[in-house]
Amino acid sequence: MNLPSRYLENCIHELSKLPGIGSKSASRIAFFLLKTPKANVDALIGAITQLKDNIRYCEECGGISDEAVCSVCSDVERDKTTLCVVEEPEDMLSIEKSGAFDGLYHVLGGVIAPLDGVGPEELSINKLVERCKSGIKEVIIATNPTIEGDATALYIASLLKPMNIKVMRIAHGLPVGGDLEFVDAPTLAKSITGRREM
Amino acid sequence: MNLPSRYLENCIHELSKLPGIGSKSASRIAFFLLKTPKANVDALIGAITQLKDNIRYCEECGGISDEAVCSVCSDVERDKTTLCVVEEPEDMLSIEKSGAFDGLYHVLGGVIAPLDGVGPEELSINKLVERCKSGIKEVIIATNPTIEGDATALYIASLLKPMNIKVMRIAHGLPVGGDLEFVDAPTLAKSITGRREM
Repeated sequence: MNLPSRYLENCIHELSKLPGIGSKSASRIAFFLLKTPKANVDALIGAITQLKDNIRYCEECGGISDEAVCSVCSDVERDKTTLCVVEEPEDMLSIEKSGAFDGLYHVLGGVIAPLDGVGPEELSINKLVERCKSGIKEVIIATNPTIEGDATALYIASLLKPMNIKVMRIAHGLPVGGDLEFVDAPTLAKSITGRREM
Repeated sequence: MNLPSRYLENCIHELSKLPGIGSKSASRIAFFLLKTPKANVDALIGAITQLKDNIRYCEECGGISDEAVCSVCSDVERDKTTLCVVEEPEDMLSIEKSGAFDGLYHVLGGVIAPLDGVGPEELSINKLVERCKSGIKEVIIATNPTIEGDATALYIASLLKPMNIKVMRIAHGLPVGGDLEFVDAPTLAKSITGRREM
């Protein structure tokens, strides 16, 4: 069907490129923007522009930051002997939200994926090894439980173990509130093999 | 939880004001925008800005248009004796998509809702009456089947019937592919009272 306006058509097309936004949601958002006061739309556009222009990556951990060094790395009260290695800056935020980790982070910027042309050099693995030379006692590898995430974890472990660093992997198993009946087989297998003494 | 960047926080806040976007989706979109090449983000911003700055409402029907008169109103092949009255421009697009209507439209710009301070004067009802004076034989009222939509339909019918115009209401009943077992009671009641001879 031809829309009566190419501006509307173009806007819906661009909005539907966003993750989780299909053509119906995009159309709904476009009509909402059309009815919203100009000031509110300008606020949205301003926020996106500022995000794109001003955000920086922390020189220490590679996480998202407004300053040269992020608020986590510059926090004097955090444990500076433990590093948590994550794939992306958003993973760092998820762990921060859990409140279960009090050390520093290291953002890899992805995982080793030879099929996509991503080798160890494309990630900040060399920098991780450098950081580990100064006072780091424990590294928790929190890459995702995927084939690439597991392979990257193994690769990093092989580099750090000879440096006398305790290399840990986050636990995989049943999610809290999960149900044995409905959980998938690989997760259940992980939760059996990774069992802990009570 | 405090995000490590106020730009990120502000962007998530603005995105979560969009319809159907909660804080999780907003966060996902913000991170997506962060990783997307600047040119793509500029294309999105440009599309929204153009939509906001350039879109017009058709002088005839009140629908969305790039020109003074929309493509439906200026189409010489459409039946100019039948008007379909809808609440919003997006309703017009939905009916166009169905392909079941070949006449012209009239967009009210809302429904009569005294509690929200919307009376008949706030809608384009006077203009509808004017349009009906020149050659309109049938008016199909396609406001939504809500209390306000039904009341608005009744009000419009009371104005147009004395003008010797055939005033119709779109049918309400079971949706195509629907299931008697799961349909709600008011819809089922409508489909019984609105039964047709086979």
